[in-house]
Amino acid sequence: MCAKKTPTTLTVPADESIHKPEPELYPLLSSINSPDDLRRMPLDSLPGVCADIRKFLIDSLSTNPGHFASSMGAVELTVALHYVFNTPYDRIVWDVGHQAYGHKLLTGRASRFHTNRKLGGLSGFPNPDESEYDTFTAGHASNSISAALGMAAASALKNESPQRHVVAVIGDASISGGLAFEGLNNAANANSNLLIILNDNDMSIDRNVGSLNSYLAHLTASKGYNSFRYKMSRIARKLGLVTDNGKWRILRFNNSLKSLINKEQNIFEGLNIRYFGPFDGHDLPRIVKVLNDIKDIPGPRILHLRTVKGKGYAPAENDPAPWHAPGCFNPQSGERKGESNDVHYPKFQTVFGTTLKNLALENSRIVGITAAMSSGTSMNILQEAMPSRVFDVGISEGHAVTFAGGLAKEGMLPYVAIYSAFLQRAYDNIIHDVAVQQLPVTFCIDRAGLVGEDGVTHHGVLDLTYLRAIPGMTVAAPRDADTLRNLLYTSQLPDRQGPWAIRYPRGRGYCADPDAPLSKVEIGKGEKLRSGSDVSVLSLGAIASEVAKALDIAQQQGISAAHYDMAFLKPLDESILKEVVAAGKPIVTVEDATVEGGLAGAVLEWMSDNGCNLPLIRLGVPDAFVPQGKVPQLFRLCGMDADSIATAVVKAGKEAES
Amino acid sequence: MCAKKTPTTLTVPADESIHKPEPELYPLLSSINSPDDLRRMPLDSLPGVCADIRKFLIDSLSTNPGHFASSMGAVELTVALHYVFNTPYDRIVWDVGHQAYGHKLLTGRASRFHTNRKLGGLSGFPNPDESEYDTFTAGHASNSISAALGMAAASALKNESPQRHVVAVIGDASISGGLAFEGLNNAANANSNLLIILNDNDMSIDRNVGSLNSYLAHLTASKGYNSFRYKMSRIARKLGLVTDNGKWRILRFNNSLKSLINKEQNIFEGLNIRYFGPFDGHDLPRIVKVLNDIKDIPGPRILHLRTVKGKGYAPAENDPAPWHAPGCFNPQSGERKGESNDVHYPKFQTVFGTTLKNLALENSRIVGITAAMSSGTSMNILQEAMPSRVFDVGISEGHAVTFAGGLAKEGMLPYVAIYSAFLQRAYDNIIHDVAVQQLPVTFCIDRAGLVGEDGVTHHGVLDLTYLRAIPGMTVAAPRDADTLRNLLYTSQLPDRQGPWAIRYPRGRGYCADPDAPLSKVEIGKGEKLRSGSDVSVLSLGAIASEVAKALDIAQQQGISAAHYDMAFLKPLDESILKEVVAAGKPIVTVEDATVEGGLAGAVLEWMSDNGCNLPLIRLGVPDAFVPQGKVPQLFRLCGMDADSIATAVVKAGKEAES
Repeated sequence: MCAKKTPTTLTVPADESIHKPEPELYPLLSSINSPDDLRRMPLDSLPGVCADIRKFLIDSLSTNPGHFASSMGAVELTVALHYVFNTPYDRIVWDVGHQAYGHKLLTGRASRFHTNRKLGGLSGFPNPDESEYDTFTAGHASNSISAALGMAAASALKNESPQRHVVAVIGDASISGGLAFEGLNNAANANSNLLIILNDNDMSIDRNVGSLNSYLAHLTASKGYNSFRYKMSRIARKLGLVTDNGKWRILRFNNSLKSLINKEQNIFEGLNIRYFGPFDGHDLPRIVKVLNDIKDIPGPRILHLRTVKGKGYAPAENDPAPWHAPGCFNPQSGERKGESNDVHYPKFQTVFGTTLKNLALENSRIVGITAAMSSGTSMNILQEAMPSRVFDVGISEGHAVTFAGGLAKEGMLPYVAIYSAFLQRAYDNIIHDVAVQQLPVTFCIDRAGLVGEDGVTHHGVLDLTYLRAIPGMTVAAPRDADTLRNLLYTSQLPDRQGPWAIRYPRGRGYCADPDAPLSKVEIGKGEKLRSGSDVSVLSLGAIASEVAKALDIAQQQGISAAHYDMAFLKPLDESILKEVVAAGKPIVTVEDATVEGGLAGAVLEWMSDNGCNLPLIRLGVPDAFVPQGKVPQLFRLCGMDADSIATAVVKAGKEAES
Repeated sequence: MCAKKTPTTLTVPADESIHKPEPELYPLLSSINSPDDLRRMPLDSLPGVCADIRKFLIDSLSTNPGHFASSMGAVELTVALHYVFNTPYDRIVWDVGHQAYGHKLLTGRASRFHTNRKLGGLSGFPNPDESEYDTFTAGHASNSISAALGMAAASALKNESPQRHVVAVIGDASISGGLAFEGLNNAANANSNLLIILNDNDMSIDRNVGSLNSYLAHLTASKGYNSFRYKMSRIARKLGLVTDNGKWRILRFNNSLKSLINKEQNIFEGLNIRYFGPFDGHDLPRIVKVLNDIKDIPGPRILHLRTVKGKGYAPAENDPAPWHAPGCFNPQSGERKGESNDVHYPKFQTVFGTTLKNLALENSRIVGITAAMSSGTSMNILQEAMPSRVFDVGISEGHAVTFAGGLAKEGMLPYVAIYSAFLQRAYDNIIHDVAVQQLPVTFCIDRAGLVGEDGVTHHGVLDLTYLRAIPGMTVAAPRDADTLRNLLYTSQLPDRQGPWAIRYPRGRGYCADPDAPLSKVEIGKGEKLRSGSDVSVLSLGAIASEVAKALDIAQQQGISAAHYDMAFLKPLDESILKEVVAAGKPIVTVEDATVEGGLAGAVLEWMSDNGCNLPLIRLGVPDAFVPQGKVPQLFRLCGMDADSIATAVVKAGKEAES
């Protein structure tokens, strides 16, 4: 029993269109409406199911882009899990969820998969609101073990019968996050019925880093062991030395054997988690057999599967990084189709990466830090130019920030590039390890605001509020590529003080000249972009471009509005605020972030402190979770697209007149 | 070179009083003004220095309470580190810092140690503002490895000569935190010159949990190994098989030997960190020798020392948990002196623990979760009554919250008790793993607001702002023990929805009757505590008691103020706000939290949305870091004690009159 959900997610009309998988194209997949159908099939049908899933994913994702290579690599694993376990009674918890498309296809969502990542369509990640087979929120890495452990503990407390199996499926990159370690460290202690599947494709989105990953590679590379084990196991069976009930003891015995041969103890066994593997994650009959063997062993277990990212599609197997999320592509040739829209403006992330590289060439104190998102944040530009000046710390945002604190304490100028939603993981590190000491760390917060198709877990809309509360934090949001360049330039000048956050969205921004000379920005200084007499609009960041369009519309409707780009949330530009107060016109604030405690709140607090009272309309992301969709659709949904802003401005202007 | 610090910390007059250690009582310690003095001493003087430090700590802390047992256990380690390393050029990074009092005494602060934890005095934790020997902020667990790694990386990038040594000192509880694991996982990768000292006293504040701790215990328990190793080492030396330069290879060889004997690989070696130990952490000559042996080995190393918490003071050795922070005590008898003030009111934490236990007896869905703070949060009350219903997950706040999410998803009602400042570690978990699914997890946020003597890292003043930004989060703050009891009761009724945060301070709260029948609270409903005609005061939480005193004072000065306890920050009580707006009097908000984006911001946003304009004065913690001191002193410093509130209320009332 779960408490009812309060309406805290913005609702959109569901896209209920149905495209059933054609039986002639996908003969087996088209007959599967739920895992029950799968479980009725003979074992030797399963490779055909896998082939259907792969073909379906290629066909579908080539025209409706999404995450590709991870799901391709997890097809056998997915089929085996639903074949062996009694889902949804048994719980599968997918970590991150990039790999869960096959799971969606097998759990009744193939006919809606063409709506994947679209407004009103299927979520690109497992989503409990969408299906009872999606057991937990996914999107941020490394949470699956902890969540699954909680489920297993609940099952034990409730004394459920039959015993409920709980399976966490986690990749080799995610398992290196601190949260996953905390889960592992507690798994044995709780002694719950938990199976962890380590889906090891030796790739995070970019590449794996860190010692645990080297360790996993080493485990796999232990030569000669597997064949020896197989022989031992077969002999023991033939001689009747083991019963069916004792099968798993063979596997355990094999591990002891392996330790003996390699003179090492398994790191997971050191944490009191029974370790099985590594096995070939594409050997379906074998995985089914191993899962059946180990599913009823009490206590925590880990099954280590080696998989190939992009498996079954040669272009992706050969070059998995760009095929993580390839965009549209030609299924036959494997040619990826580039983006076409808006190409005259550069991406914010590219401007960040290029500018940081150019600055680092001149300023030896500059170093870059990324948490497994080198290409996603464009930190790879500096990395390729000066490898020793960039640290890719893997999926460990907390460490990234504290590590940056250590670097800054010794005189370096660290630039930590992390997506806004993931920076939530490092909130205490920002406060305790950077801000208390006022260290000169620059947080380059990419994917800030509404991010589009990645949806609810990836929108980065809380940062303005949670960063503003931190004493001494400078919070800036460039409205375009030009201002981003100058902010970065300013952030590394000798008189720069304390921590800075520079947030910018996914997407592109106006750039007059990417090679223009850089100039110093005044801290806490905004800019008046447009004069107007009826309303004062204050915006922060790249949403300024929506405001510009809105004020053209408002002008046509007879309302003249001034537009100020605040540029900084902290410190606020008091000269702008004084000018706005002196004008005495209604204020509209616009921010690509929650309206709870962000720009609007800061302006209201300033006015209150200064004894000013003006009507103020808060535009931005409302106090609700926002689903996926294209950014313009979401702007409209949140009432912060140009039309909605215009409507608000006109209304404010007319009310003031009357 | 480090950027200048902006004035973001509230400054208080320094307590410059000097009490030099008397030479007749502390003959060696009194002669040490800096580690240089220590390093000039012969090795055989060091045990005497240790004895002096222990005597000084016992004498000082028996009258001026602080953290006791951790520092007692780290005396030899501290002396050895400053003896072997060239501090402050070499960097020592203390994790948490409970153990760093000896370090303070050796680094020129013995004569100010009587001001420890007092307003204007020494910080109870390492604090870079206080001494160049305090290299990084400490207070929150598990950050030392990441920070030290950053320092080592900076040193390598700067090509410093002589090579700068960086030493992280971390306890066996802290090393089980996810952040520490992320640091360990990156240590080998960065291949920096980092030495990690694992100070293993087999105790966190309460007791250690988790598999890593079992593993450490197992390492230590490997019998027969040490004596064998000593012999091998001695023979090799005698035979001239190793040079001085090769000394460390012997230690490495010994580890290989150990692996062979125990048929295991060391877990740290599995992470490519060279492991040495375990050694007796109180065998000073041996620690000095080992540190000299391994200090110049390139790359990351870990030295595992076994220490005894409270070492050298029998009462603390025998019962270390209460001696972690014992309060005042009789140095001779070891009798601890209880608290005496305000004993007619119970502590908020006790009311929480007792009420939760009583509710859990009736409601089988209730479970409790603590992150190594069972007695600190009073979760031990439920734990002792129903051990299977409480999960102590160790120092892993992120896991604690995600684990609670898993439990809640399966129908349980988890109560996660975490100190406000430490909950910052779990911000993303609250959002991603609880709030997105609107799971019924209750966050029982202890030590919310200004906490007093623990100071800047422990004040929990950001929670109102960062929690208010989360959609669907109910945020409540009881004004006294009675309302806390009823809130807890209400939170477990069948119609309870979504996540709840209940924040309450360190200290005590009014309780009419601890056994009174529990009654249901209306969500988002505050209470009018006092009528008044000149000013409307809105407060949130236990600060209501200061407001009550303030309004008595204001009344004497001719200003009559109404007082509303908002009880909930989210949802806000709109009926109170409408009443206040209708009254049309100036508003004063009072919150024991930052005034950036909390109660004041929420009220201003509501008024703006509803077209109301009234003067509003924001009282609470200003936008700056707050140092340590007694809570009443800090209230005064922040302008939120009764006198300051009264002054603000009177001023607002008089201005409105004129």
